[in-house]
Amino acid sequence: MSAASHEPSVLHEVAIDLGDRSYPIRIGTGLLGAFGTWSGLPRSAAALVVTNDTVAPLYLEALCLALRPHYATVHKVVLPDGEAHKDWQTLNRIFDGLLGHACDRKTVLFALGGGVVGDMTGFAAACYMRGVPFVQVPTTLLAQVDSSVGGKTAINHPLGKNMVGAFHQPALVVCDLDTLVTLPDREFSAGLAEVIKYGPIADMAFLDWIEAHLGELLRRESQAVAHAVRRSCEIKAWVVGQDEREAGLRAILNFGHTFGHAIEAGLGYGEWLHGEAVGCGMVMALQLSQRLGLVDAGFVERLTRLIEAAGLPVRGPALGPDRYLELMRLDKKSEAGDIRFVVIEAPGRAGVRAAPEALVRDVVRHCTA
Amino acid sequence: MSAASHEPSVLHEVAIDLGDRSYPIRIGTGLLGAFGTWSGLPRSAAALVVTNDTVAPLYLEALCLALRPHYATVHKVVLPDGEAHKDWQTLNRIFDGLLGHACDRKTVLFALGGGVVGDMTGFAAACYMRGVPFVQVPTTLLAQVDSSVGGKTAINHPLGKNMVGAFHQPALVVCDLDTLVTLPDREFSAGLAEVIKYGPIADMAFLDWIEAHLGELLRRESQAVAHAVRRSCEIKAWVVGQDEREAGLRAILNFGHTFGHAIEAGLGYGEWLHGEAVGCGMVMALQLSQRLGLVDAGFVERLTRLIEAAGLPVRGPALGPDRYLELMRLDKKSEAGDIRFVVIEAPGRAGVRAAPEALVRDVVRHCTA
Repeated sequence: MSAASHEPSVLHEVAIDLGDRSYPIRIGTGLLGAFGTWSGLPRSAAALVVTNDTVAPLYLEALCLALRPHYATVHKVVLPDGEAHKDWQTLNRIFDGLLGHACDRKTVLFALGGGVVGDMTGFAAACYMRGVPFVQVPTTLLAQVDSSVGGKTAINHPLGKNMVGAFHQPALVVCDLDTLVTLPDREFSAGLAEVIKYGPIADMAFLDWIEAHLGELLRRESQAVAHAVRRSCEIKAWVVGQDEREAGLRAILNFGHTFGHAIEAGLGYGEWLHGEAVGCGMVMALQLSQRLGLVDAGFVERLTRLIEAAGLPVRGPALGPDRYLELMRLDKKSEAGDIRFVVIEAPGRAGVRAAPEALVRDVVRHCTA
Repeated sequence: MSAASHEPSVLHEVAIDLGDRSYPIRIGTGLLGAFGTWSGLPRSAAALVVTNDTVAPLYLEALCLALRPHYATVHKVVLPDGEAHKDWQTLNRIFDGLLGHACDRKTVLFALGGGVVGDMTGFAAACYMRGVPFVQVPTTLLAQVDSSVGGKTAINHPLGKNMVGAFHQPALVVCDLDTLVTLPDREFSAGLAEVIKYGPIADMAFLDWIEAHLGELLRRESQAVAHAVRRSCEIKAWVVGQDEREAGLRAILNFGHTFGHAIEAGLGYGEWLHGEAVGCGMVMALQLSQRLGLVDAGFVERLTRLIEAAGLPVRGPALGPDRYLELMRLDKKSEAGDIRFVVIEAPGRAGVRAAPEALVRDVVRHCTA
């Protein structure tokens, strides 16, 4: 069903409360192609929509048609798809587009796509003329439940993921659930990794719900998907509202990401999807939590089974413990050479701590093929 | 006289008042190589000094020696000198250095050099792991009186100057007047352009003082230079304290820069020094102010003579009015295609306004070779 073919319907609205940087997340159907969705944004003569070559044929025209009544001109930049292109060269295409069209510093950018498009468009918006407004229009489950919300933007460096970036909050996030219909199964499972994440770090009742409704989620039944997106956004909003710039609490959202980023950088960006690396990374972080005496084997086993049932890898690539440690030392949470991990301190509660290297090596050996 | 060879002396301290982003500007002699200058900064295991290949042989070792007691490791990145290198490729060398040394997100960056080094180091600090602290150690007159203060950071794009950047305030600015001794005459004159600027936009008494002491300034007599740096920083601090992110007033600091940026981009970055382009740009902006009926011919003549006497060009390159207009339409102050100029509304007071294209063409024809 195309986004423009039925009446727009906002099912849920979640508020991100950050003072003068507050904004709503609208979750619903038929939103992307509806004129009214895009009312009330900062006024500007021009908009520029950034997307990738996979999403462009599906949704770009519908979005541009809906934006046209709001802006005198609507420009487009289509990037190559994939994490391998989340680099400066590709980012620079957005700046080329903005300057080539003589876009001024009121121009509103729209990120139409998954996490890579959102992170790059947001970073371009943070830097263009030292900051222009932008809107997130996430079209993947991963972007709807996690990366489009909270203002983290970045590109990758060959030595580490998301190493160059900015905190820059969007003016609006629009999650059109219709766009998930066209998502490949592998991408959908990758998004489920970030949904599952919210259970062990913050809400065991949500984990119970995910387990009970995994079949409906995998069949993409609309009510189940709508609830998963809503509850994920609520938990993320609650965390980001308390710690916008990751001085403390916000780091728990990176559960599974320290091991996961090492997998992504170690294999080369794009080999595994980000959500796949996070799925496997959560299993490794759970094994570490168990070895630190924080959770029991039954809890680790329960989550490992759920991650596997969601279609995600639970064994990491055999890069060797030395390479994992080397890559993780560059993690943004590291301090003075000490790697710091998000661990589950008790079911539903996460924290950040250093771990003895021997334990980490043991986890890597245990969890890699 | 080398920076380390005499007792350090803070002659003036100017406060930049921006709430929790406030910081001091210390102006004096013997500061760069003194241990005590670098006390009280954010604590970190590592520092990284960024400089260029002209400044490195003069001051890099002295600074690193003075920093060493404060940090377990002091890393260095030496960039090629010049505005032509204020681009992403060169910026990326800073990220390569940071990640190559596994620098964490507490690492303090030091910008040792002129405006290009300061703008690039500041932008790297704004983006590395989404933000690390940095310190400005300006070694040119231009950087000491203008670019090191106020938190504007950026790199150039082939289509426009400072188009990609961030607002990121330093933790400290240290203006060691000893470093001006080694500055080539052309660079010193370029710095005087930004000193002269403060007169017509904000302080006619300071303009009187500059005219009366131009000979001493050009001979770099220490008391005169110290006063020029101090008063320039005071005026800049007053403006930035009221309008950190250039919502309004701060734009007056760009007097001469709209025409000047067009000269720099039109000739290719590095052909003219930034201060030279600003000197000539001020003459053009004065001619425009006169044509708008805001100031009289005597005022324009008086400032043109001063700019020329400071060793700066007062006639622009013959790019033709069309090319000037095309380049200026990309200026960050432009809105919906209208170029907006900083003009002198009355001696000592500046404002921003659009101007009829015919007048701008007339100014370009009048002022170019």
